[in-house]
Amino acid sequence: MLVAVYLEGGRSGEWRQRLQECLPGIPCRTLDENPPADSVTHAAVWQPPPGWLASFPRLRCVVSLAAGVDGILQDATVPSGVPILRLAGEPLAARMREYVLLAVLALHRDLPRINCDRQNRIWNDPVPRVASERTVGVMGLGVLGGDVARVLSNVGFRVAGWSRRPRQIPGIRCHAGRRDLAGFLQSVEILINLLPLTSSTRYMFDHRLFARLPKGAGFVNVGRGAHVVETDLLEAIDSGQLSGAVLDCFGIEPLPETHPFWEHPRILMTPHVAAPLDAETGSRLAADLIRRFEAGEKVPVVDVAAGY
Amino acid sequence: MLVAVYLEGGRSGEWRQRLQECLPGIPCRTLDENPPADSVTHAAVWQPPPGWLASFPRLRCVVSLAAGVDGILQDATVPSGVPILRLAGEPLAARMREYVLLAVLALHRDLPRINCDRQNRIWNDPVPRVASERTVGVMGLGVLGGDVARVLSNVGFRVAGWSRRPRQIPGIRCHAGRRDLAGFLQSVEILINLLPLTSSTRYMFDHRLFARLPKGAGFVNVGRGAHVVETDLLEAIDSGQLSGAVLDCFGIEPLPETHPFWEHPRILMTPHVAAPLDAETGSRLAADLIRRFEAGEKVPVVDVAAGY
Repeated sequence: MLVAVYLEGGRSGEWRQRLQECLPGIPCRTLDENPPADSVTHAAVWQPPPGWLASFPRLRCVVSLAAGVDGILQDATVPSGVPILRLAGEPLAARMREYVLLAVLALHRDLPRINCDRQNRIWNDPVPRVASERTVGVMGLGVLGGDVARVLSNVGFRVAGWSRRPRQIPGIRCHAGRRDLAGFLQSVEILINLLPLTSSTRYMFDHRLFARLPKGAGFVNVGRGAHVVETDLLEAIDSGQLSGAVLDCFGIEPLPETHPFWEHPRILMTPHVAAPLDAETGSRLAADLIRRFEAGEKVPVVDVAAGY
Repeated sequence: MLVAVYLEGGRSGEWRQRLQECLPGIPCRTLDENPPADSVTHAAVWQPPPGWLASFPRLRCVVSLAAGVDGILQDATVPSGVPILRLAGEPLAARMREYVLLAVLALHRDLPRINCDRQNRIWNDPVPRVASERTVGVMGLGVLGGDVARVLSNVGFRVAGWSRRPRQIPGIRCHAGRRDLAGFLQSVEILINLLPLTSSTRYMFDHRLFARLPKGAGFVNVGRGAHVVETDLLEAIDSGQLSGAVLDCFGIEPLPETHPFWEHPRILMTPHVAAPLDAETGSRLAADLIRRFEAGEKVPVVDVAAGY
């Protein structure tokens, strides 16, 4: 057994070390350490170089070192038939629900408008609405989306959800499928994207989708940058169709210096920090998945055809 | 019976009308309508002109049209012995807990630092801490403070509380009195002021208090502007002793155009909108208080000596 480790951004070494601590007795090797291809039985990766995973003839499973798997499925040569496992767990879920709660409350309490007023030193203090008068919509009702929907409901918001396949969550009005999308969108004043990035959700958030929301709606993107047509989002905000947005992910990251999002007063932006995993926590979750997979326990396997 | 109505800021007319709708058969009159002084039995007011309340010989009770009573007790001529009642209720509590949750999450997720980075187009994405690793401190554990403490605890924060007199709230580590203040402050990374404004809390948030917090703590003011020595707060932020603040109230409101808070990147400011009451809701709560008082029911009466 040998675990091949790779993450983009120069982080492989730290993760390999942490993972090794969690998997004593099973060698863990980074790309730079050139693990012998026919010894590699497991891969723990994020955005591996295309073709690298395909070079391991005895690969038994791939663990994605993030909540999504688009960083793995983007490599068309990933061997089919090898199960792909996704990290999941409380550290990821806790950070995501805290971030989304912050983002939704910021839009609910009108921070984009207040920030604009502030730039112009305008003191404008209308009485704010309360959460129980506000419908928030969550797109994507997987582990993270379902958790987010429940927390928003607990805090007092009316919550609707949308997913590709029908789901049931107590207290949440659940919609499913393309046919039910328009009805969902027109009921929602703050929209949260937590969908997986697949061929059918790429650039889904465009001018047509934004036009279906009630005028003045807010938008939160904690999915992927490539879910959103960024020029359409800017137009929707500048026309007043949307009142503002909270964005954590972008088409290009880090966001290029000349990008208009940096200075837009109605956009609150954060540098992809909604639900990152540190090496210590992520390695612990990944090691646990590998152990459970080897023990034949039930683990969350990706549906490659669906893309998530 | 006659209810005299006054609020500063030209709002008396609207409130009188709403209150009249809630109290059919009991005349409600504003200052401008010159109610006959010896007919006035009740006053529903905020920041009435000094001496006005003292001019009513048959006054049976005063209802404060806000959560605090500092806007009434500032008039030294308010007749002693006349009970002063405070508005309280779910609309006020809901807005306050939503605002404080937003403010605490903003500091917890490092928005002051992220906003500074954004101004300099810096993409810096450390892994954020989770709420369960963070202690939030609530000063003032009355109706609103207790409610806020419970909500923060439900969302996952470790919560400590401080009040003048000892309190017990399940799940909250409660401190009381001046002797226990230093111990409370040194345990708290995000501090919320929800104290009443009295002679002993005025300017309580000064350089000595901020120095007792752990370095890099955050501060939320949803009490009154006069709780805070604003120059000390600025110094504490600029020296790094505090990492940022969320402020909803100020020594002078509207905030003067030249005030340094307007442009400070580590201060998130809002124009006193944490928990305002609209005329419709506020009048309903006030009318309900007057009815219950007249029926001899138990109502929340202010301890004038304590100042809240």
